[in-house]
Amino acid sequence: MSPSPSPSPSQPPAPTGITRIDHVGIACRDLDASIEFYQRVHGLTVEHEEVNEEQGVREVMLRTNGTDDGNASYLQLLEPTHSDSPVAKFLDKYGEGVHHVAFGTGNVDTAAHAAAGNGIRVLGSEPRPGTAGSRIVFLHPRDCGGVLTELVQAPEDTTGDRNH
Amino acid sequence: MSPSPSPSPSQPPAPTGITRIDHVGIACRDLDASIEFYQRVHGLTVEHEEVNEEQGVREVMLRTNGTDDGNASYLQLLEPTHSDSPVAKFLDKYGEGVHHVAFGTGNVDTAAHAAAGNGIRVLGSEPRPGTAGSRIVFLHPRDCGGVLTELVQAPEDTTGDRNH
Repeated sequence: MSPSPSPSPSQPPAPTGITRIDHVGIACRDLDASIEFYQRVHGLTVEHEEVNEEQGVREVMLRTNGTDDGNASYLQLLEPTHSDSPVAKFLDKYGEGVHHVAFGTGNVDTAAHAAAGNGIRVLGSEPRPGTAGSRIVFLHPRDCGGVLTELVQAPEDTTGDRNH
Repeated sequence: MSPSPSPSPSQPPAPTGITRIDHVGIACRDLDASIEFYQRVHGLTVEHEEVNEEQGVREVMLRTNGTDDGNASYLQLLEPTHSDSPVAKFLDKYGEGVHHVAFGTGNVDTAAHAAAGNGIRVLGSEPRPGTAGSRIVFLHPRDCGGVLTELVQAPEDTTGDRNH
């Protein structure tokens, strides 16, 4: 037998193409106390605050640094707005601490598709509204080494190739 | 009584002066499998690998992005080298997942002193060797809202005012 070229070689699935740590999400019981802690101890300031009713959280973003994809990294502090929200259940089970890690990408649809192509369960049928007009998806922590992983597309970042 | 100026007003303690998310430390049972995951799914590559005997870990650093303080952010994957290391105990208790969050600072001695001045327990009497020649301290998670917090001074970062 002579070797024959494969007519349609299966390509390895593409990676998500993340370009930064967008934020570390931290679950807390008292948002105001947590804000005071990060302001006093680490000198961070609140850049954004909102209530996300869909996710049942009151949240703030504390900017830590700019990133070389033209965006920034943040700490996100999350306080549940009601006792059966996911963050409330997390607090009941684990107490205060790191809830998830979010990676920035220029195109969250492409990134979510790539994650699914790599066998990762993507939670929800499509990207949903995240903090400050971003679009996000979550990846199942059991498929990500125990890390609840979020993919984030910043509201102004639609090309994935910004570099300013 | 007339008001008298306070001769030595007590100043609020200084903050740590962190300038970036340096890394997110992730505990795993199989370092090679975790490296393969982050390479395949997210396209990250190993920039550094070492064994830290003092902390009982085999670890790698996967670079996610550059930061505007002239350094970078990483994921740090940690596999215990023996069953009574802190990371092994973490895995026994919580399973795989986020182990700690590390913030970069230009001067870890100053930052640790500032943390202590804010009432945060600093673990260990002085900064110790971290990954790739860095100097680090850990802050007690019970004083930091459940987050085991690391302060990191990169080996080449001794002034805290680099901006290239």
